[in-house]
Amino acid sequence: MIGIFDSGVGGLTVVKEIQKRLPGYQIIYFGDTARLPYGTKGAGFVQKYSSKIVNWLLDNGAKIIIIACHTSSAWASENLKRHFKNAPIFEMIAPAIKEALKRTKNKKIGIIGTPGTVKSQAYERGLLSIDSGLEVYPVACPLFVPLVEEGWISKKITKEIAEEYLKPLKKKKIDTLVLACTHYPLLKKTIRRVLGPEVKIINPAESLAEELSIYLAAHPETALQIKKGNDHRFFFSDAPYNLKKISQICFNQEIVVRIEDPF
Amino acid sequence: MIGIFDSGVGGLTVVKEIQKRLPGYQIIYFGDTARLPYGTKGAGFVQKYSSKIVNWLLDNGAKIIIIACHTSSAWASENLKRHFKNAPIFEMIAPAIKEALKRTKNKKIGIIGTPGTVKSQAYERGLLSIDSGLEVYPVACPLFVPLVEEGWISKKITKEIAEEYLKPLKKKKIDTLVLACTHYPLLKKTIRRVLGPEVKIINPAESLAEELSIYLAAHPETALQIKKGNDHRFFFSDAPYNLKKISQICFNQEIVVRIEDPF
Repeated sequence: MIGIFDSGVGGLTVVKEIQKRLPGYQIIYFGDTARLPYGTKGAGFVQKYSSKIVNWLLDNGAKIIIIACHTSSAWASENLKRHFKNAPIFEMIAPAIKEALKRTKNKKIGIIGTPGTVKSQAYERGLLSIDSGLEVYPVACPLFVPLVEEGWISKKITKEIAEEYLKPLKKKKIDTLVLACTHYPLLKKTIRRVLGPEVKIINPAESLAEELSIYLAAHPETALQIKKGNDHRFFFSDAPYNLKKISQICFNQEIVVRIEDPF
Repeated sequence: MIGIFDSGVGGLTVVKEIQKRLPGYQIIYFGDTARLPYGTKGAGFVQKYSSKIVNWLLDNGAKIIIIACHTSSAWASENLKRHFKNAPIFEMIAPAIKEALKRTKNKKIGIIGTPGTVKSQAYERGLLSIDSGLEVYPVACPLFVPLVEEGWISKKITKEIAEEYLKPLKKKKIDTLVLACTHYPLLKKTIRRVLGPEVKIINPAESLAEELSIYLAAHPETALQIKKGNDHRFFFSDAPYNLKKISQICFNQEIVVRIEDPF
Protein backbone atom coordinates (compact mmCIF):
# COMPACT_ATOMS: atom_id res chain seq x y z
CA MET A 1 0.00 0.00 0.00
CA ILE A 2 0.91 3.64 -0.37
CA GLY A 3 0.94 5.15 3.12
CA ILE A 4 -0.22 8.77 3.31
CA PHE A 5 -0.57 10.90 6.41
CA ASP A 6 -1.66 14.37 7.34
CA SER A 7 -2.81 16.12 10.50
CA GLY A 8 -6.44 15.76 9.40
CA VAL A 9 -8.65 15.56 6.36
CA GLY A 10 -6.59 17.94 4.18
CA GLY A 11 -4.39 15.13 2.87
CA LEU A 12 -7.42 13.73 1.05
CA THR A 13 -6.57 16.29 -1.68
CA VAL A 14 -3.27 14.41 -2.03
CA VAL A 15 -5.05 11.04 -2.12
CA LYS A 16 -7.18 12.44 -4.93
CA GLU A 17 -4.20 13.41 -7.08
CA ILE A 18 -2.42 10.09 -6.45
CA GLN A 19 -5.56 8.16 -7.39
CA LYS A 20 -5.80 10.20 -10.57
CA ARG A 21 -2.17 9.63 -11.53
CA LEU A 22 -1.69 6.10 -10.15
CA PRO A 23 -5.07 4.37 -10.15
CA GLY A 24 -5.10 0.84 -8.79
CA TYR A 25 -2.47 1.29 -6.09
CA GLN A 26 -4.06 0.65 -2.72
CA ILE A 27 -3.81 3.53 -0.26
CA ILE A 28 -3.69 3.53 3.53
CA TYR A 29 -4.37 6.97 4.98
CA PHE A 30 -3.84 8.25 8.50
CA GLY A 31 -5.25 11.63 9.60
CA ASP A 32 -4.11 12.69 13.07
CA THR A 33 -7.35 14.48 13.90
CA ALA A 34 -6.82 13.91 17.64
CA ARG A 35 -3.83 16.22 17.57
CA LEU A 36 -4.67 18.55 14.67
CA PRO A 37 -3.79 21.18 13.64
CA TYR A 38 -0.05 20.66 13.19
CA GLY A 39 0.26 24.09 11.55
CA THR A 40 0.38 26.06 14.79
CA LYS A 41 2.35 23.50 16.83
CA GLY A 42 6.05 23.30 17.57
CA ALA A 43 8.72 21.39 15.61
CA GLY A 44 9.36 18.83 18.38
CA PHE A 45 5.70 17.95 18.62
CA VAL A 46 5.34 17.52 14.87
CA GLN A 47 8.49 15.37 14.66
CA LYS A 48 7.39 13.10 17.51
CA TYR A 49 3.96 12.34 16.08
CA SER A 50 5.10 12.13 12.44
CA SER A 51 7.54 9.43 13.50
CA LYS A 52 4.86 7.49 15.40
CA ILE A 53 2.56 7.66 12.39
CA VAL A 54 5.20 6.43 9.90
CA ASN A 55 5.91 3.52 12.21
CA TRP A 56 2.22 2.70 12.35
CA LEU A 57 1.78 2.96 8.56
CA LEU A 58 4.73 0.61 7.96
CA ASP A 59 3.38 -1.84 10.55
CA ASN A 60 0.10 -1.78 8.66
CA GLY A 61 1.47 -2.65 5.25
CA ALA A 62 2.67 0.62 3.70
CA LYS A 63 5.66 0.13 1.38
CA ILE A 64 6.09 3.77 0.55
CA ILE A 65 5.34 6.86 2.65
CA ILE A 66 3.87 10.21 1.58
CA ILE A 67 4.11 13.02 4.12
CA ALA A 68 1.05 14.90 2.87
CA CYS A 69 1.22 17.54 5.63
CA HIS A 70 3.37 20.52 4.66
CA THR A 71 4.16 21.42 8.27
CA SER A 72 5.36 17.88 8.84
CA SER A 73 7.23 17.94 5.49
CA ALA A 74 8.97 21.08 6.70
CA TRP A 75 9.80 20.04 10.26
CA ALA A 76 10.03 16.26 10.15
CA SER A 77 10.97 14.90 6.72
CA GLU A 78 14.76 14.89 7.23
CA ASN A 79 14.33 13.18 10.56
CA LEU A 80 11.97 10.60 9.10
CA LYS A 81 14.26 9.83 6.15
CA ARG A 82 17.14 9.26 8.58
CA HIS A 83 15.13 6.97 10.84
CA PHE A 84 13.16 4.92 8.33
CA LYS A 85 15.65 3.73 5.72
CA ASN A 86 13.68 0.71 4.49
CA ALA A 87 10.88 2.59 2.79
CA PRO A 88 11.08 5.50 0.36
CA ILE A 89 9.67 8.66 1.94
CA PHE A 90 8.20 11.49 -0.11
CA GLU A 91 7.33 14.93 1.12
CA MET A 92 5.43 17.81 -0.42
CA ILE A 93 7.98 20.60 -0.60
CA ALA A 94 10.70 19.42 -3.02
CA PRO A 95 8.32 18.57 -5.92
CA ALA A 96 6.45 21.87 -5.46
CA ILE A 97 9.71 23.82 -5.49
CA LYS A 98 10.76 22.11 -8.74
CA GLU A 99 7.44 22.98 -10.33
CA ALA A 100 7.52 26.61 -9.14
CA LEU A 101 11.01 27.06 -10.61
CA LYS A 102 9.81 25.63 -13.91
CA ARG A 103 6.76 27.91 -14.09
CA THR A 104 7.93 31.32 -12.87
CA LYS A 105 8.98 33.88 -15.48
CA ASN A 106 9.49 37.02 -13.38
CA LYS A 107 11.12 35.04 -10.54
CA LYS A 108 8.63 36.32 -7.97
CA ILE A 109 7.04 33.43 -6.12
CA GLY A 110 4.41 33.54 -3.38
CA ILE A 111 4.02 30.77 -0.81
CA ILE A 112 0.87 30.47 1.28
CA GLY A 113 0.65 28.02 4.17
CA THR A 114 0.00 27.53 7.86
CA PRO A 115 1.95 29.59 10.43
CA GLY A 116 4.11 26.50 11.09
CA THR A 117 5.05 25.97 7.45
CA VAL A 118 5.81 29.66 6.98
CA LYS A 119 7.85 29.80 10.18
CA SER A 120 9.93 26.82 9.06
CA GLN A 121 11.15 28.82 6.02
CA ALA A 122 11.51 25.49 4.21
CA TYR A 123 10.22 26.86 0.90
CA GLU A 124 12.44 29.97 0.89
CA ARG A 125 15.51 27.97 1.81
CA GLY A 126 14.77 25.35 -0.85
CA LEU A 127 14.02 27.86 -3.59
CA LEU A 128 16.89 30.24 -2.84
CA SER A 129 19.43 27.43 -2.59
CA ILE A 130 18.68 26.63 -6.24
CA ASP A 131 18.33 30.19 -7.53
CA SER A 132 19.45 33.03 -5.28
CA GLY A 133 18.00 35.55 -7.73
CA LEU A 134 14.43 34.62 -6.81
CA GLU A 135 12.12 36.77 -4.72
CA VAL A 136 10.10 34.54 -2.39
CA TYR A 137 7.14 35.89 -0.41
CA PRO A 138 5.65 33.58 2.23
CA VAL A 139 2.30 34.44 3.83
CA ALA A 140 0.55 32.54 6.64
CA CYS A 141 -3.21 32.18 6.12
CA PRO A 142 -4.44 30.56 9.36
CA LEU A 143 -8.13 31.10 8.57
CA PHE A 144 -8.07 29.08 5.33
CA VAL A 145 -8.10 25.67 7.05
CA PRO A 146 -11.12 26.42 9.28
CA LEU A 147 -12.89 27.98 6.26
CA VAL A 148 -12.43 24.79 4.24
CA GLU A 149 -13.45 22.61 7.19
CA GLU A 150 -16.60 24.72 7.55
CA GLY A 151 -17.28 23.99 3.86
CA TRP A 152 -17.23 27.73 3.05
CA ILE A 153 -15.41 27.15 -0.23
CA SER A 154 -16.86 29.81 -2.49
CA LYS A 155 -18.67 32.24 -0.20
CA LYS A 156 -18.29 36.01 -0.51
CA ILE A 157 -16.66 36.09 2.95
CA THR A 158 -14.07 33.53 1.83
CA LYS A 159 -13.12 35.73 -1.11
CA GLU A 160 -12.80 38.73 1.21
CA ILE A 161 -10.53 36.83 3.58
CA ALA A 162 -8.47 35.65 0.60
CA GLU A 163 -8.20 39.27 -0.59
CA GLU A 164 -6.92 40.29 2.83
CA TYR A 165 -4.27 37.55 2.95
CA LEU A 166 -3.20 37.85 -0.70
CA LYS A 167 -2.99 41.66 -0.82
CA PRO A 168 0.79 41.76 -0.14
CA LEU A 169 1.40 39.12 -2.84
CA LYS A 170 -0.57 41.11 -5.44
CA LYS A 171 1.46 44.16 -4.49
CA LYS A 172 4.70 42.26 -5.04
CA LYS A 173 3.44 41.17 -8.48
CA ILE A 174 4.19 37.46 -8.04
CA ASP A 175 3.56 35.35 -11.15
CA THR A 176 3.53 31.99 -9.32
CA LEU A 177 1.83 30.91 -6.10
CA VAL A 178 2.41 27.65 -4.21
CA LEU A 179 -0.56 26.31 -2.19
CA ALA A 180 1.62 25.00 0.63
CA CYS A 181 -1.12 23.39 2.71
CA THR A 182 -3.22 20.37 1.80
CA HIS A 183 -6.49 22.20 2.46
CA TYR A 184 -5.75 25.10 0.14
CA PRO A 185 -6.32 23.39 -3.24
CA LEU A 186 -10.01 23.36 -2.28
CA LEU A 187 -9.88 27.17 -2.33
CA LYS A 188 -8.08 27.31 -5.69
CA LYS A 189 -10.98 28.86 -7.62
CA THR A 190 -11.43 31.62 -5.03
CA ILE A 191 -7.69 32.29 -4.95
CA ARG A 192 -7.59 32.45 -8.73
CA ARG A 193 -10.44 34.93 -8.74
CA VAL A 194 -8.49 37.14 -6.32
CA LEU A 195 -5.10 36.91 -8.03
CA GLY A 196 -6.30 36.90 -11.64
CA PRO A 197 -5.71 34.30 -14.37
CA GLU A 198 -2.13 35.39 -15.11
CA VAL A 199 -0.76 34.03 -11.81
CA LYS A 200 0.16 30.35 -12.01
CA ILE A 201 -1.17 28.40 -9.05
CA ILE A 202 0.76 25.31 -8.04
CA ASN A 203 -0.95 22.47 -6.22
CA PRO A 204 1.94 20.50 -4.66
CA ALA A 205 -0.25 17.38 -4.59
CA GLU A 206 -0.11 17.28 -8.41
CA SER A 207 3.67 17.77 -8.41
CA LEU A 208 4.05 15.03 -5.78
CA ALA A 209 1.85 12.60 -7.73
CA GLU A 210 3.97 13.20 -10.82
CA GLU A 211 7.21 12.65 -8.90
CA LEU A 212 5.79 9.47 -7.39
CA SER A 213 4.77 8.06 -10.75
CA ILE A 214 8.25 8.76 -12.15
CA TYR A 215 9.82 7.05 -9.13
CA LEU A 216 7.65 3.94 -9.47
CA ALA A 217 8.36 3.69 -13.19
CA ALA A 218 12.08 3.77 -12.37
CA HIS A 219 11.76 1.32 -9.42
CA PRO A 220 9.55 -1.52 -10.63
CA GLU A 221 10.66 -3.74 -7.71
CA THR A 222 9.08 -1.24 -5.28
CA ALA A 223 6.04 -0.81 -7.53
CA LEU A 224 5.54 -4.60 -7.48
CA GLN A 225 5.63 -4.71 -3.67
CA ILE A 226 2.77 -2.25 -3.31
CA LYS A 227 -0.57 -3.95 -2.87
CA LYS A 228 -3.06 -3.20 -5.64
CA GLY A 229 -6.75 -2.55 -5.14
CA ASN A 230 -9.28 0.20 -4.82
CA ASP A 231 -10.46 -0.56 -1.30
CA HIS A 232 -8.48 2.25 0.23
CA ARG A 233 -8.29 2.41 4.01
CA PHE A 234 -8.84 5.69 5.85
CA PHE A 235 -7.91 5.95 9.52
CA PHE A 236 -8.37 8.97 11.77
CA SER A 237 -7.21 9.30 15.37
CA ASP A 238 -10.45 11.12 16.25
CA ALA A 239 -13.76 11.66 14.44
CA PRO A 240 -13.03 14.35 11.81
CA TYR A 241 -15.21 17.43 11.89
CA ASN A 242 -17.29 17.87 8.73
CA LEU A 243 -15.78 14.81 7.02
CA LYS A 244 -18.94 14.34 4.99
CA LYS A 245 -18.66 17.78 3.39
CA ILE A 246 -14.91 17.48 2.76
CA SER A 247 -15.07 14.02 1.20
CA GLN A 248 -17.96 15.18 -0.98
CA ILE A 249 -15.87 18.14 -2.13
CA CYS A 250 -12.80 15.91 -2.78
CA PHE A 251 -14.33 12.72 -4.16
CA ASN A 252 -17.97 13.58 -4.93
CA GLN A 253 -18.90 10.86 -2.47
CA GLU A 254 -18.62 9.92 1.19
CA ILE A 255 -15.78 7.66 2.27
CA VAL A 256 -15.78 4.91 4.88
CA VAL A 257 -13.39 5.67 7.72
CA ARG A 258 -12.16 4.01 10.89
CA ILE A 259 -11.61 6.03 14.04
CA GLU A 260 -8.79 4.84 16.29
CA ASP A 261 -5.93 6.50 18.07
CA PRO A 262 -2.99 4.10 18.18
CA PHE A 263 -0.80 6.48 20.26
CA MET B 1 -3.81 28.16 44.11
CA ILE B 2 -6.86 28.26 41.89
CA GLY B 3 -6.28 25.76 39.07
CA ILE B 4 -7.78 26.75 35.72
CA PHE B 5 -7.55 24.84 32.47
CA ASP B 6 -8.65 25.22 28.89
CA SER B 7 -7.63 23.73 25.56
CA GLY B 8 -5.57 26.82 24.77
CA VAL B 9 -5.38 30.56 25.40
CA GLY B 10 -9.16 31.14 25.50
CA GLY B 11 -9.35 30.43 29.23
CA LEU B 12 -7.35 33.60 29.84
CA THR B 13 -10.69 35.43 29.56
CA VAL B 14 -11.77 33.38 32.61
CA VAL B 15 -8.54 34.22 34.44
CA LYS B 16 -9.29 37.87 33.76
CA GLU B 17 -12.76 37.71 35.36
CA ILE B 18 -11.50 35.75 38.37
CA GLN B 19 -8.69 38.24 38.93
CA LYS B 20 -11.23 41.04 38.76
CA ARG B 21 -13.59 39.41 41.25
CA LEU B 22 -11.05 37.66 43.49
CA PRO B 23 -7.81 39.63 43.34
CA GLY B 24 -4.96 38.22 45.39
CA TYR B 25 -5.74 34.54 44.92
CA GLN B 26 -2.83 32.91 43.12
CA ILE B 27 -3.74 31.18 39.85
CA ILE B 28 -2.16 28.20 38.11
CA TYR B 29 -3.28 27.91 34.50
CA PHE B 30 -2.86 25.02 32.07
CA GLY B 31 -3.63 25.46 28.35
CA ASP B 32 -3.50 22.20 26.40
CA THR B 33 -2.21 23.83 23.21
CA ALA B 34 -0.54 20.57 22.12
CA ARG B 35 -3.94 18.98 21.68
CA LEU B 36 -6.17 21.98 20.90
CA PRO B 37 -8.84 22.50 19.75
CA TYR B 38 -11.09 20.41 22.02
CA GLY B 39 -14.19 21.84 20.31
CA THR B 40 -14.09 19.53 17.30
CA LYS B 41 -12.80 16.43 19.16
CA GLY B 42 -14.70 13.46 20.57
CA ALA B 43 -16.05 13.06 24.13
CA GLY B 44 -13.62 10.26 25.06
CA PHE B 45 -10.62 12.31 24.03
CA VAL B 46 -11.78 15.36 25.97
CA GLN B 47 -12.51 13.27 29.08
CA LYS B 48 -9.12 11.55 28.99
CA TYR B 49 -7.08 14.73 28.77
CA SER B 50 -9.28 16.75 31.14
CA SER B 51 -8.66 14.11 33.75
CA LYS B 52 -4.89 14.15 33.18
CA ILE B 53 -4.85 17.94 33.48
CA VAL B 54 -6.84 18.01 36.73
CA ASN B 55 -4.43 15.48 38.18
CA TRP B 56 -1.50 17.64 37.14
CA LEU B 57 -3.05 20.83 38.56
CA LEU B 58 -3.70 19.16 41.92
CA ASP B 59 -0.15 17.78 41.98
CA ASN B 60 1.06 21.31 41.40
CA GLY B 61 -0.75 22.94 44.28
CA ALA B 62 -4.27 23.72 43.03
CA LYS B 63 -6.87 23.53 45.82
CA ILE B 64 -9.84 24.30 43.60
CA ILE B 65 -10.40 23.50 39.92
CA ILE B 66 -12.05 25.62 37.23
CA ILE B 67 -12.87 23.84 33.96
CA ALA B 68 -12.67 26.95 31.79
CA CYS B 69 -13.24 25.02 28.54
CA HIS B 70 -16.93 24.71 27.66
CA THR B 71 -16.41 21.56 25.61
CA SER B 72 -14.69 19.97 28.57
CA SER B 73 -17.37 21.35 30.93
CA ALA B 74 -19.95 19.66 28.70
CA TRP B 75 -18.23 16.30 28.17
CA ALA B 76 -16.04 15.83 31.21
CA SER B 77 -17.28 17.69 34.29
CA GLU B 78 -19.46 14.90 35.72
CA ASN B 79 -16.64 12.43 35.26
CA LEU B 80 -14.15 14.77 36.90
CA LYS B 81 -16.40 15.48 39.88
CA ARG B 82 -16.80 11.72 40.40
CA HIS B 83 -13.07 11.04 40.22
CA PHE B 84 -11.63 13.99 42.14
CA LYS B 85 -13.60 14.27 45.35
CA ASN B 86 -10.98 16.12 47.40
CA ALA B 87 -11.15 19.41 45.53
CA PRO B 88 -14.18 21.45 44.54
CA ILE B 89 -14.59 21.48 40.76
CA PHE B 90 -16.37 24.30 38.94
CA GLU B 91 -17.45 24.29 35.33
CA MET B 92 -18.75 26.98 33.02
CA ILE B 93 -22.21 25.81 32.10
CA ALA B 94 -24.26 25.80 35.34
CA PRO B 95 -23.48 29.43 36.33
CA ALA B 96 -24.18 30.62 32.77
CA ILE B 97 -27.51 28.79 32.72
CA LYS B 98 -28.52 30.40 36.01
CA GLU B 99 -27.65 33.84 34.66
CA ALA B 100 -29.48 33.27 31.36
CA LEU B 101 -32.64 32.22 33.23
CA LYS B 102 -32.40 35.36 35.36
CA ARG B 103 -32.00 37.67 32.38
CA THR B 104 -34.37 36.38 29.69
CA LYS B 105 -37.80 37.98 29.44
CA ASN B 106 -39.21 36.41 26.27
CA LYS B 107 -37.74 32.98 27.13
CA LYS B 108 -35.85 32.73 23.83
CA ILE B 109 -32.18 32.01 24.50
CA GLY B 110 -29.38 31.61 21.96
CA ILE B 111 -26.24 29.60 22.70
CA ILE B 112 -23.13 29.98 20.56
CA GLY B 113 -20.18 27.63 20.97
CA THR B 114 -17.84 25.18 19.31
CA PRO B 115 -19.25 22.21 17.38
CA GLY B 116 -18.36 19.99 20.38
CA THR B 117 -20.23 22.12 22.90
CA VAL B 118 -23.26 22.39 20.63
CA LYS B 119 -23.23 18.66 19.89
CA SER B 120 -23.16 17.87 23.62
CA GLN B 121 -26.54 19.64 24.07
CA ALA B 122 -25.44 20.43 27.62
CA TYR B 123 -26.95 23.92 27.58
CA GLU B 124 -30.34 22.86 26.18
CA ARG B 125 -30.62 19.98 28.62
CA GLY B 126 -29.65 22.19 31.55
CA LEU B 127 -31.98 25.04 30.61
CA LEU B 128 -34.98 22.90 29.68
CA SER B 129 -34.70 20.77 32.82
CA ILE B 130 -35.32 23.95 34.84
CA ASP B 131 -37.93 25.55 32.56
CA SER B 132 -39.45 23.44 29.81
CA GLY B 133 -41.21 26.50 28.40
CA LEU B 134 -37.94 27.97 27.12
CA GLU B 135 -36.93 28.09 23.48
CA VAL B 136 -33.20 27.35 23.21
CA TYR B 137 -31.30 27.88 19.95
CA PRO B 138 -27.74 26.56 19.82
CA VAL B 139 -25.45 27.56 16.94
CA ALA B 140 -21.90 26.33 16.31
CA CYS B 141 -19.50 29.08 15.19
CA PRO B 142 -16.27 27.23 14.36
CA LEU B 143 -14.62 30.23 12.70
CA PHE B 144 -14.81 32.44 15.81
CA VAL B 145 -11.86 30.77 17.58
CA PRO B 146 -9.43 31.09 14.65
CA LEU B 147 -10.62 34.67 14.10
CA VAL B 148 -9.78 35.57 17.70
CA GLU B 149 -6.45 33.73 17.54
CA GLU B 150 -5.63 35.68 14.36
CA GLY B 151 -6.35 38.85 16.37
CA TRP B 152 -9.11 39.85 13.92
CA ILE B 153 -11.33 41.13 16.71
CA SER B 154 -13.08 44.08 15.12
CA LYS B 155 -12.48 43.73 11.36
CA LYS B 156 -15.24 44.14 8.81
CA ILE B 157 -14.82 40.47 7.83
CA THR B 158 -15.33 39.40 11.44
CA LYS B 159 -18.62 41.29 11.56
CA GLU B 160 -19.71 39.64 8.29
CA ILE B 161 -18.91 36.18 9.63
CA ALA B 162 -20.79 37.02 12.85
CA GLU B 163 -23.77 38.16 10.76
CA GLU B 164 -23.74 34.83 8.91
CA TYR B 165 -23.64 32.76 12.11
CA LEU B 166 -26.10 34.90 14.08
CA LYS B 167 -28.69 35.28 11.30
CA PRO B 168 -30.86 32.35 12.55
CA LEU B 169 -30.76 33.74 16.11
CA LYS B 170 -31.91 37.19 14.97
CA LYS B 171 -34.72 35.52 13.07
CA LYS B 172 -35.83 33.67 16.20
CA LYS B 173 -35.84 36.98 18.11
CA ILE B 174 -33.78 35.75 21.06
CA ASP B 175 -33.40 38.29 23.88
CA THR B 176 -30.45 36.55 25.59
CA LEU B 177 -27.26 35.05 24.13
CA VAL B 178 -24.73 32.89 25.99
CA LEU B 179 -21.11 33.09 24.76
CA ALA B 180 -20.43 29.40 25.38
CA CYS B 181 -16.75 29.38 24.42
CA THR B 182 -13.90 31.09 26.26
CA HIS B 183 -12.70 32.88 23.12
CA TYR B 184 -16.02 34.49 22.31
CA PRO B 185 -16.06 37.24 24.98
CA LEU B 186 -13.27 38.85 22.95
CA LEU B 187 -15.80 39.23 20.10
CA LYS B 188 -18.49 40.65 22.38
CA LYS B 189 -18.47 44.14 20.84
CA THR B 190 -18.81 42.75 17.31
CA ILE B 191 -21.58 40.39 18.38
CA ARG B 192 -23.40 43.23 20.10
CA ARG B 193 -23.15 45.32 16.95
CA VAL B 194 -24.74 42.48 14.95
CA LEU B 195 -27.51 41.60 17.43
CA GLY B 196 -28.33 45.10 18.62
CA PRO B 197 -28.25 46.55 22.16
CA GLU B 198 -31.53 44.95 23.25
CA VAL B 199 -30.09 41.40 23.31
CA LYS B 200 -28.44 40.57 26.65
CA ILE B 201 -25.06 38.94 26.14
CA ILE B 202 -23.88 36.60 28.86
CA ASN B 203 -20.19 35.98 29.43
CA PRO B 204 -20.09 32.74 31.46
CA ALA B 205 -16.69 33.73 32.86
CA GLU B 206 -18.39 36.55 34.80
CA SER B 207 -21.11 34.20 36.08
CA LEU B 208 -18.47 31.65 37.10
CA ALA B 209 -16.38 34.27 38.91
CA GLU B 210 -19.45 35.34 40.84
CA GLU B 211 -20.33 31.76 41.77
CA LEU B 212 -16.75 31.15 42.87
CA SER B 213 -16.68 34.23 45.10
CA ILE B 214 -19.95 33.16 46.74
CA TYR B 215 -18.52 29.67 47.30
CA LEU B 216 -15.33 30.97 48.90
CA ALA B 217 -17.25 33.32 51.16
CA ALA B 218 -19.31 30.35 52.34
CA HIS B 219 -16.27 28.03 52.68
CA PRO B 220 -13.59 30.05 54.47
CA GLU B 221 -11.60 26.88 55.26
CA THR B 222 -11.13 26.29 51.51
CA ALA B 223 -10.44 30.00 50.92
CA LEU B 224 -7.70 29.87 53.58
CA GLN B 225 -6.01 26.88 51.91
CA ILE B 226 -5.61 28.70 48.60
CA LYS B 227 -2.20 30.34 48.25
CA LYS B 228 -2.33 34.08 47.89
CA GLY B 229 -0.15 36.12 45.55
CA ASN B 230 -0.15 37.79 42.19
CA ASP B 231 2.64 35.77 40.59
CA HIS B 232 0.26 33.63 38.57
CA ARG B 233 1.70 30.65 36.73
CA PHE B 234 0.77 29.96 33.12
CA PHE B 235 1.63 26.60 31.58
CA PHE B 236 1.00 25.51 28.00
CA SER B 237 1.63 22.06 26.54
CA ASP B 238 2.92 23.64 23.32
CA ALA B 239 3.88 27.19 22.32
CA PRO B 240 0.57 29.03 21.83
CA TYR B 241 0.01 30.70 18.49
CA ASN B 242 -0.31 34.48 18.75
CA LEU B 243 -0.10 34.48 22.56
CA LYS B 244 1.34 38.00 22.51
CA LYS B 245 -1.73 39.40 20.76
CA ILE B 246 -4.20 37.48 22.91
CA SER B 247 -2.58 38.39 26.23
CA GLN B 248 -2.44 42.02 25.11
CA ILE B 249 -6.16 41.89 24.31
CA CYS B 250 -6.97 40.19 27.66
CA PHE B 251 -4.57 41.87 30.08
CA ASN B 252 -3.15 44.88 28.20
CA GLN B 253 0.27 43.29 28.72
CA GLU B 254 2.27 40.21 27.81
CA ILE B 255 2.36 37.32 30.27
CA VAL B 256 5.26 35.03 31.13
CA VAL B 257 4.49 31.42 30.26
CA ARG B 258 6.15 28.03 30.57
CA ILE B 259 5.90 25.52 27.77
CA GLU B 260 5.87 21.88 28.84
CA ASP B 261 3.78 18.88 27.96
CA PRO B 262 3.49 16.65 31.04
CA PHE B 263 1.49 13.93 29.20
